[in-house]
Amino acid sequence: MSIKLIGFPASGPLLKVIITLRELGLPYELEIPSNIQAIKEEDYIKNKHPFGKIPVLIDGDFVINESRPICTYLVSKYQGKHNNTNLIPTDVHKAGLVGQYVSYESSYYDPPISKIVYQEIYARKFQNKDPDPEVIKQAREELAKVLDVYEKILEGKEYLNGEYSIADLFHIPSTHYVYSIDAHSDLWDSRPNVKNWWNRLCNREAVKKTIDEIAK
Amino acid sequence: MSIKLIGFPASGPLLKVIITLRELGLPYELEIPSNIQAIKEEDYIKNKHPFGKIPVLIDGDFVINESRPICTYLVSKYQGKHNNTNLIPTDVHKAGLVGQYVSYESSYYDPPISKIVYQEIYARKFQNKDPDPEVIKQAREELAKVLDVYEKILEGKEYLNGEYSIADLFHIPSTHYVYSIDAHSDLWDSRPNVKNWWNRLCNREAVKKTIDEIAK
Ligand SMILES: N[C@@H](CCC(=O)N[C@@H](CS)C(=O)NCC(=O)O)C(=O)O
Ligand SMILES: N[C@@H](CCC(=O)N[C@@H](CS)C(=O)NCC(=O)O)C(=O)O
Repeated sequence: MSIKLIGFPASGPLLKVIITLRELGLPYELEIPSNIQAIKEEDYIKNKHPFGKIPVLIDGDFVINESRPICTYLVSKYQGKHNNTNLIPTDVHKAGLVGQYVSYESSYYDPPISKIVYQEIYARKFQNKDPDPEVIKQAREELAKVLDVYEKILEGKEYLNGEYSIADLFHIPSTHYVYSIDAHSDLWDSRPNVKNWWNRLCNREAVKKTIDEIAK
Repeated sequence: MSIKLIGFPASGPLLKVIITLRELGLPYELEIPSNIQAIKEEDYIKNKHPFGKIPVLIDGDFVINESRPICTYLVSKYQGKHNNTNLIPTDVHKAGLVGQYVSYESSYYDPPISKIVYQEIYARKFQNKDPDPEVIKQAREELAKVLDVYEKILEGKEYLNGEYSIADLFHIPSTHYVYSIDAHSDLWDSRPNVKNWWNRLCNREAVKKTIDEIAK
């Protein structure tokens, strides 16, 4: 039974799922909707995602949507089946802390970095608008404070929870997009622990391949 | 070994944890910080929460923060130990879908309802400011669209995932606060499936007790 994934290739949430699939050694087939309207149609809303979003994963006859729970599902079902990569530890305390760091990503890291992605990439590309310098400035300040906290969390550690996990992985797509913009890479490069963490993440096989093939 | 919980009683994220503790039949001790400054102090930032937030849970010598992962941790460790209440199913597919509905709460339900909570409660109480009618209007419209989707999801079902789970539970604190405001209860009452779902949640012992004792 093959795994099918629905999404637009440049989407950050989709990339979270693709990196997870590759980390777990799972083959999949990507289905790209013809356009944004296609994910607002009745059949899609009814059978794929009631809010009309991507990504959606179809595993046999099981349908699940929303990037973070898709990844957690894949780990619960397939971790250890195709390789030895661990994305969620089995120990209940370690797994609890992975959840905690996942919440840091969605609660503190994602909001400011998403504003930059929106301004620098989405608005330029899809709305032909220049970024709003005031929004960028505030988002950078907010993200800088978050990265100051990360710099302390990462002191003496290779990854947020010590060992690599989905918590680190979830930071990759948005960081890749913003780090690739010359004007913003200083946010990571000026903080040694954060910089080393980011380099470590970029050097993972599953990440390199995903970025080379899909998110160039 | 007793469970200690740190937080301010009126906080929605804290109430998520308290309802979870009660659902699982776990006794706990609540520690209320003396003021907001107390959670910004060096020791708190270092040992409790690096972003200076509540809630924080201390279980023996294990410290974990952020409401949703705290609840997931409690379920993983204690579900079935003190009673038969199930908050996360053991089946990997059912658990996956609980995660999906948890993501609906944090991605779609929480943003607009939090704006209303902020305007109607926080700004009035702590900043002595009247709510901004334009912000309220937009947040209501956004929340109404989300509740239209919930109305369909809940068709023929008692709870989001069929059976009660942390996904339903996570909606309770914010809904309690906004539903209690006469001008906003129509959002739930005008949608029969949503209304029945909300009544069902309010009638749970753990919820009634928490609201009676703490979130009046
Ligand atoms: N909470 C969702 C967010 C997904 C999301 O924002 N998807 C965007 C593409 S990156 C989308 O489907 N946008 C279409 C729309 O909102 O109309 C997740 O993590 O999967
Ligand atoms: N993502 C966090 C949010 C927690 C949160 O927002 N806590 C508020 C109280 S409701 C807080 O600690 N505020 C203090 C501050 O930000 O200074 C969670 O779910 O636990």
